[in-house]
Amino acid sequence: MEPAASAAASGAASGASAAMPEAFADPQYLAAVVDLLGAIGYGQLSAFERLAEDAAMAPSIADKVAVATLAAREVNNVTRLRERLGELGADPDEAMAPFKAPLEAFHAHTKPRDWWEGLVKAFVGDALATDFYREIAAFLDVDTRELIIDTLRDTGHAEFVVDRVTTAIAADPRLGGRLALWGRRLMGEALTQAQRVAAERDALVALLSGGVDRPGMDLAAVGRMFARLTERHAQRMADLGLDS
Amino acid sequence: MEPAASAAASGAASGASAAMPEAFADPQYLAAVVDLLGAIGYGQLSAFERLAEDAAMAPSIADKVAVATLAAREVNNVTRLRERLGELGADPDEAMAPFKAPLEAFHAHTKPRDWWEGLVKAFVGDALATDFYREIAAFLDVDTRELIIDTLRDTGHAEFVVDRVTTAIAADPRLGGRLALWGRRLMGEALTQAQRVAAERDALVALLSGGVDRPGMDLAAVGRMFARLTERHAQRMADLGLDS
Repeated sequence: MEPAASAAASGAASGASAAMPEAFADPQYLAAVVDLLGAIGYGQLSAFERLAEDAAMAPSIADKVAVATLAAREVNNVTRLRERLGELGADPDEAMAPFKAPLEAFHAHTKPRDWWEGLVKAFVGDALATDFYREIAAFLDVDTRELIIDTLRDTGHAEFVVDRVTTAIAADPRLGGRLALWGRRLMGEALTQAQRVAAERDALVALLSGGVDRPGMDLAAVGRMFARLTERHAQRMADLGLDS
Repeated sequence: MEPAASAAASGAASGASAAMPEAFADPQYLAAVVDLLGAIGYGQLSAFERLAEDAAMAPSIADKVAVATLAAREVNNVTRLRERLGELGADPDEAMAPFKAPLEAFHAHTKPRDWWEGLVKAFVGDALATDFYREIAAFLDVDTRELIIDTLRDTGHAEFVVDRVTTAIAADPRLGGRLALWGRRLMGEALTQAQRVAAERDALVALLSGGVDRPGMDLAAVGRMFARLTERHAQRMADLGLDS
């Protein structure tokens, strides 16, 4: 675990400037925020690449434009996250790099076989990531929290996906069974990769535990957070007309 | 040629609203503008897809973000063009559809084998399309002209590509020879597909010839336009340090 943790530290090597909030005086906190912004940034870059692949499978030009527009929104935020990483004294590439492997593993294990699996993955996967990062954002300084919430705001694909998927299931009920299984697989794979990240990124995990002057989560609170994430996932599957 | 021409006419079937400029009273002109906006729209959608593929080949995260950002810019304009097509009484999907085949043929025949060919194609191909549409825009009503110029403004990738390509050629001069050949192939294939479009889209060609109240180009003027396009292409190749 050490190499990954020290890579995070070197990513923030030159330290934050004097204008930064008090919280960044704690190098552990700074390293955790750098990790978090790097994870969100690579996640959105990766979502862009996958949505662009989905666009290629679109059954109509209107659908292709809709999914390409979703892809464009993902990438528009990456630049803002990278600028913030620079302000924090981190190298944006170094900060994002540790999340390349887990995100590519997630995508390699959840490669959509068709347009419908791609749609469900974009909706369910992005919303799950958004929920998770919002939970974490509650423990951060105001500037970082607002950046994260703002960055994640634009990535809801709900209306478009719900409309397309419910219509398709109405026309072919067997599709509903296949997509329900697919949703479970997405959730399982997301948890697997999240666990892998947690095992490798000490600073990120320490962030959740809190500090002397910072509130954190005990194990029971982490359990409640996962219960909330699962509940919202089930609600989204229900919105799509799918069992979870 | 008839089926394609009548498809264009049906794309603008319901006619323009009363608030439209005088020029749209001519159904031939209206059909030509619908064709043109459809061509530019599908061109940008297609450029988005190709740039997204290029992003996957990027040698670093910074390069991946840069190319993904270029891709996002392409798609951000497509929605504006589609809205305008709707205002003109055309179905945006029908207006864009005729240009899917020639654009996909162009891309199938110019598939970049690596990151460098992708960069040169993005720069040279997009700039060539932009120059061409700007030439045509000079013959259009003010609203359409401004929309086209505005839509094409954002797609210059010059600085980024010139920087990367000239650096790479300095390190490996043989790359320059290969990319010079590649630039010639791009130009040749673009002309082939443009000719195919010209043969199929009567309204678009009629637009260039002018009308009773509209100036147009005679054959000599078309020749001069192609001379200008070729000259600017040669200048861009020179900017990249490549023979044309």
